[in-house]
Amino acid sequence: MESMMIYAPIVMAIVGLLFMAVKRSWVLKQNPGDGKMKEISDHIYEGALAFLNAEYRLLAVFVVIVSVALAVVSFVVPTTHILIVVAFIFGAIFSALAGNMGMKIATKTNVRTTQAARTSLPNALKVSFGGGTVMGLGVAGLAVLGLTSFFIFFFHYFMGGVWTNTMDMTIVLETLAGFSLGAESIALFARVGGGIYTKAADVGADLVGKVEAGIPEDDPRNPATIADNVGDNVGDVAGMGADLFGSYVATVLAAMVLGNYVIKDMGGAITDAFGGIGPILLPMAIAGVGIIISMIGTMLVKIKSNDAKEAQVMGALNIGNWVSIVLVAISCFVLVKWMLPETMNMSFFGEGLQEISSMRVFYATLVGLVVGAGISSVTEYYTGLGKSPILKIVQQSSTGAGTNIIAGLATGMISTFPSVLLFAGAIWASYAFAGFYGVALAASAMMATTAMQLAIDAFGPISDNAGGIAEMSEQEPIVRERTDILDSVGNTTAATGKGFAIASAALTSLALFAAYVTFTGIDGINIFKAPVLAMLFVGGMIPVVFSALAMNAVGKAAMQMVNEVRRQFREIPGIMEGTGKPEYDKCVAISTKASLREMLLPGIMTIGFPLVIAFVPMIFGMNNMAIAEMLGGYMAGVTVSGVLWAIFQNNAGGAWDNAKKSFEAGVLINGEMTYKGSDAHKAAVTGDTVGDPFKDTSGPSMNILIKLTCLIGLVIAPILGNHDSDVMAAESSSEEVYFIDADGNKTILTEKQIQYIETGSTIKEGEDLNNKTETMVEMLKNDKNDQVTANVTITRTVDGLETTETKTFTGSEEEVRAQLKDVDGVKIKIKDKE
Amino acid sequence: MESMMIYAPIVMAIVGLLFMAVKRSWVLKQNPGDGKMKEISDHIYEGALAFLNAEYRLLAVFVVIVSVALAVVSFVVPTTHILIVVAFIFGAIFSALAGNMGMKIATKTNVRTTQAARTSLPNALKVSFGGGTVMGLGVAGLAVLGLTSFFIFFFHYFMGGVWTNTMDMTIVLETLAGFSLGAESIALFARVGGGIYTKAADVGADLVGKVEAGIPEDDPRNPATIADNVGDNVGDVAGMGADLFGSYVATVLAAMVLGNYVIKDMGGAITDAFGGIGPILLPMAIAGVGIIISMIGTMLVKIKSNDAKEAQVMGALNIGNWVSIVLVAISCFVLVKWMLPETMNMSFFGEGLQEISSMRVFYATLVGLVVGAGISSVTEYYTGLGKSPILKIVQQSSTGAGTNIIAGLATGMISTFPSVLLFAGAIWASYAFAGFYGVALAASAMMATTAMQLAIDAFGPISDNAGGIAEMSEQEPIVRERTDILDSVGNTTAATGKGFAIASAALTSLALFAAYVTFTGIDGINIFKAPVLAMLFVGGMIPVVFSALAMNAVGKAAMQMVNEVRRQFREIPGIMEGTGKPEYDKCVAISTKASLREMLLPGIMTIGFPLVIAFVPMIFGMNNMAIAEMLGGYMAGVTVSGVLWAIFQNNAGGAWDNAKKSFEAGVLINGEMTYKGSDAHKAAVTGDTVGDPFKDTSGPSMNILIKLTCLIGLVIAPILGNHDSDVMAAESSSEEVYFIDADGNKTILTEKQIQYIETGSTIKEGEDLNNKTETMVEMLKNDKNDQVTANVTITRTVDGLETTETKTFTGSEEEVRAQLKDVDGVKIKIKDKE
Repeated sequence: MESMMIYAPIVMAIVGLLFMAVKRSWVLKQNPGDGKMKEISDHIYEGALAFLNAEYRLLAVFVVIVSVALAVVSFVVPTTHILIVVAFIFGAIFSALAGNMGMKIATKTNVRTTQAARTSLPNALKVSFGGGTVMGLGVAGLAVLGLTSFFIFFFHYFMGGVWTNTMDMTIVLETLAGFSLGAESIALFARVGGGIYTKAADVGADLVGKVEAGIPEDDPRNPATIADNVGDNVGDVAGMGADLFGSYVATVLAAMVLGNYVIKDMGGAITDAFGGIGPILLPMAIAGVGIIISMIGTMLVKIKSNDAKEAQVMGALNIGNWVSIVLVAISCFVLVKWMLPETMNMSFFGEGLQEISSMRVFYATLVGLVVGAGISSVTEYYTGLGKSPILKIVQQSSTGAGTNIIAGLATGMISTFPSVLLFAGAIWASYAFAGFYGVALAASAMMATTAMQLAIDAFGPISDNAGGIAEMSEQEPIVRERTDILDSVGNTTAATGKGFAIASAALTSLALFAAYVTFTGIDGINIFKAPVLAMLFVGGMIPVVFSALAMNAVGKAAMQMVNEVRRQFREIPGIMEGTGKPEYDKCVAISTKASLREMLLPGIMTIGFPLVIAFVPMIFGMNNMAIAEMLGGYMAGVTVSGVLWAIFQNNAGGAWDNAKKSFEAGVLINGEMTYKGSDAHKAAVTGDTVGDPFKDTSGPSMNILIKLTCLIGLVIAPILGNHDSDVMAAESSSEEVYFIDADGNKTILTEKQIQYIETGSTIKEGEDLNNKTETMVEMLKNDKNDQVTANVTITRTVDGLETTETKTFTGSEEEVRAQLKDVDGVKIKIKDKE
Repeated sequence: MESMMIYAPIVMAIVGLLFMAVKRSWVLKQNPGDGKMKEISDHIYEGALAFLNAEYRLLAVFVVIVSVALAVVSFVVPTTHILIVVAFIFGAIFSALAGNMGMKIATKTNVRTTQAARTSLPNALKVSFGGGTVMGLGVAGLAVLGLTSFFIFFFHYFMGGVWTNTMDMTIVLETLAGFSLGAESIALFARVGGGIYTKAADVGADLVGKVEAGIPEDDPRNPATIADNVGDNVGDVAGMGADLFGSYVATVLAAMVLGNYVIKDMGGAITDAFGGIGPILLPMAIAGVGIIISMIGTMLVKIKSNDAKEAQVMGALNIGNWVSIVLVAISCFVLVKWMLPETMNMSFFGEGLQEISSMRVFYATLVGLVVGAGISSVTEYYTGLGKSPILKIVQQSSTGAGTNIIAGLATGMISTFPSVLLFAGAIWASYAFAGFYGVALAASAMMATTAMQLAIDAFGPISDNAGGIAEMSEQEPIVRERTDILDSVGNTTAATGKGFAIASAALTSLALFAAYVTFTGIDGINIFKAPVLAMLFVGGMIPVVFSALAMNAVGKAAMQMVNEVRRQFREIPGIMEGTGKPEYDKCVAISTKASLREMLLPGIMTIGFPLVIAFVPMIFGMNNMAIAEMLGGYMAGVTVSGVLWAIFQNNAGGAWDNAKKSFEAGVLINGEMTYKGSDAHKAAVTGDTVGDPFKDTSGPSMNILIKLTCLIGLVIAPILGNHDSDVMAAESSSEEVYFIDADGNKTILTEKQIQYIETGSTIKEGEDLNNKTETMVEMLKNDKNDQVTANVTITRTVDGLETTETKTFTGSEEEVRAQLKDVDGVKIKIKDKE
């Protein structure tokens, strides 16, 4: 059974997808309500579809360009196989499929939730959470299915389906990285484009509709209202789906890469019941089991009472969530014990190889689960209604928008304190337990509940939409009340979901970063080297500028929207009286066009910078290892700064949002109850306007920025890395190897003799050599200046006469290795001792 | 003459201070105006003095605590000398003196500027810039005087005034670091405390006075108006002075440390006309010459026409500034050529020792000057009136405070792009030219014009105060018009001055960072090690949280001020009619108390975090080198993130300020001229409120945060470093070295034999040994896991019989070295090859 374990994740993914299909048909069978509701829902559905189609057309061009570039690279760099292009394209298609599928079900579920809310709250929750479940299982199922299938395919294609050596597996995983790159590229555009779309529509609808015309939110007379509701779907649903799809794939991939290095550290091969690839299969197995666990978790989410309030709904979601997390912990224990060798060797910096028991790997997965939960709690504290940070912002609103905004900014900034300490602790602890494999598995364990997280996340915008439809179709107030309860819970889950997303992105990036270092074969990333430090600065700046571009994009698009809505109010007769029909599609078109246009610059910056850092110095003839280290510094800068800015922006945005919401129930300021419409509330609304692009556009984009940066680094790694020269050497081992004796005669060595030399061994007396040759190479490395000295002693017995020659080579390691390729006609292979 | 060069900087500092004294007495001789003016000026002077006295009382406690801690350390750690305490105390006193002196002259000059403005604009500029000159020369003179004097003292105390070796010089410079630490600690509190003070008073005065009571700025009826004017002096004058005093000292110190390492790389001693310490003296010489050049520069600042406008005043300042920069470049060329050896050896990472010509050091200084000017230009572009970023913010003000704030934030964020690219280029280029010595000299060259920069900077708040006094003493409108011209130019120079301050702080930190790495003797800072990466994250978070604390402090203090001002308006009869006298001192007391209270937490965080990172792992027995690397990661995190947040906050704040100011002359929004009092202007005022703590409290504090963090690291370095173990080893070389023969007899080796073994050589036949012993040690280092393998071959001739034994030791380098101390009774000293 163990040997079939490689197929198990696929089976579990298919089970998840089947469950999804059943759930989907159940949701679609629900009553979609009457004429007006259906009409509005159709508008939203069509608007969302129009955006996605336009987006996919644009992305198709992007995919073609990148595919051609990858194909060129695969011809130039021998270790990069053309199949990476296929993997890339499928990664892109799968990601698009996941986003598309999620959005379709979300736009079908919203109206059915409104209809269900006409009967009862438990029904409304069942329908909206059902839609979320379809989305969550679909995304997770596709991710595991795609990644595992490609892994099996490449494993058979490159290795014949059996373990050969770690180098072949590296090629398998490098090719597989194309799948992840494809997924993450699409995610970038989906997140940024969706984020711009939703906020442009939201701000535009609010500024003219609510503020100027004085009509309520989601009023059907507002021309931008459909665009606003479409935005919820393309931003919060499709964007989030593509984001987590990318994280899921990248995390598992990084863990697999590091699993391969565990095998390398253990001598290049292990014997286990899983064909010798247990450490590589484990992350996929955890992901697969996570799908089944999420299925169970979603089934636990239900409420009974029709009079339930936010707390009960939140409680129901929490039960599902916590049960999933506990089940993942248990299954991690079982899987780790079952699939990993009892003890492993892992190399630690400065400490050499250490024996690591499988239990320590399990502890690392626990670290991931604890940190995931911890970050969510921190997020909830800083953005939750009724919590002290929010109350302070509310107080500061009494002296105007200025103090409200200072307080919100400060809250977001302070929230980095516990979050970063949690991260730093997680990095330290999971590494201490099980090296970078531990870091990657911590991320994998955290991501195992992705399906559940997404279900909880997606149910929020669905409920928000349901409320919008209730308003637009003029339902009884009780319907809106019920959807408002769900929406309010959805706002909290949106904030914690963002915490989860950034935590997973950060750990994933670290794992990718570790995989990058091992792929390139550099010793590490030494920021005391000036060019590396310079790139750390540049990397740190990228998330800041990226955020600014995203915010400006929202500003520009919102301005266009404002002008269009003003025009319609002015030019369409009877629009305010409800007799004239607003041109919803024009607003949808503006948001669509603007978001697609504005997402290009940040996208190009994200992809372009690492390429410039890698290839421009290469053109100027810089040493590849030095470039690899610089790129590593850049990646670290993007990751550290990106995590900080993600936490800052998400939490500041969430805090402003809920500070504004606090006024709905009334707040006590200087001993006076203050409500909506007060000056303090207006100040809070201004704060929320600032927070909108923070929390829905630039903040969440940080996740993808850091993941994509690290992935691009990983894909470039083989070009920079030194392991390709190893492979080159291996490929060229069929060349003639010979040495020249004192008389100038060449003698071709036999296969066995070549092997001897290649392993760095001395050719012993008695070997079938007409001349006995002893080669001894000592490599001495000076830590102070990185210079290497190689002493080569060649002892030959020529016609019975022993001669000894000693040669010394000094220089950088690369230079010395180059010179050692051929010493006096004897090819010398240096095998690094592990 | 050359041998007396060590005293030259002192002479130049004294010349500068004499010039200052002359200028000072000239300023004080100017007419201080009539009764009411003098009265107000006295209020400001007393308020400022009251704050400084309270601050110094608090800081005295701090200085005592740190002195005791340093004294304890100096007893525990053999390389740290008790004199560091003396240096620390004097550094603190000098810094306080510089701030105090600057503030006193500023508060005396303000009223004299008002009086001079009653006659003509050229006179007003002459007086206000005269005050700035006093401040600038005083700060720079004290810095060079203090640092040079202590260097000469320590040089004589530890080395007898002549070159011995680099290790002794390291002790001199480590002790000198105490001076810099003292200066920077005071600077931290002066900057943060002053920043909180000035903004609390400003916001408090504006919110109640301008907004609620509707009286103009600086109206004498406003109880907070004196506090507001005091704030300009304690924040913008004393804070900036202490900041640049600290930068100046730290830069020169770091360059001296790296100069010492140049000598080390050249074999531990050089022969030149400067007693063999040319590379160490050079940075002091540049600083000294910079004072003379700044004197010349200040003399060039004058205008002739009484009808001059901002452009002419700015032009006069620019002439002085640019002439200074060009003169510094010329003198750098002369000094470098004169004081440095024609070619030097410097070790570059991964490239070993390289020959560096002195011309390349000169190029590095040019890099510093270009980047200093470049950063100032970038700052001017993003914050300058009439420039496109400001115009965009103005446009966005038309849709409310929310969009104004988004635009301002985005402007600050985008401004990191050119700034960081400039930095990264500067790091790269100056390092490529002349290693880290080049980086430090780039910073030194940039800082050489500090006196000039400070003169330009200090003249702004003096003119601002002069305007305030004109308003409060109800002068003719022409007087206020003239001071307004100066004030407006002062706003621009304040922004570019902040650019200069952050650029210098960043380069200084890099130089300190490099000095730290060499002090601790670590190979570098490898962020691929998980604990180092974790600390990079933690370091990155500190500036963000620090900023938030500073912003919150302003909010809290401002709230108190608002309540007090409201109370006075309510309770003091006739205050609005001008018959009742406001209690200015109560407002001054609130600002004073609040700022001192609120500066503690950020201060403790800044000082505490590096100590915790260094000492907590030490308690748990962690390897010192690993801790040093972690602390290095932390320092890098603080520097990268601190630079980003400094640029972001300073430029966003400056941009909002000038966007608001744009309305005074009127701006064109959507084709309509819009002025003060419009809704768009109100939105811009809100933006400015957010920007105030950004640009005057948290933003400028970043400079000191990063410098102080790196300085604390430098002071801790000897405790962590391995160079003390070198010294210990050298000290213990008088111990008995022996070996035990096969019969167990100990034989004490002769001095010569010990030397043989110590150099790793084999003891040869014929040496005076009763048993010939050959020891061969090979150390092989595995790059992948940092494991070291030592093969020891001991060949002995015991009673004529040769025996050979081979032993292998594997483990971390430290372990192996420990085991090698005694192999079969033969002590083995391994001398690392350089």
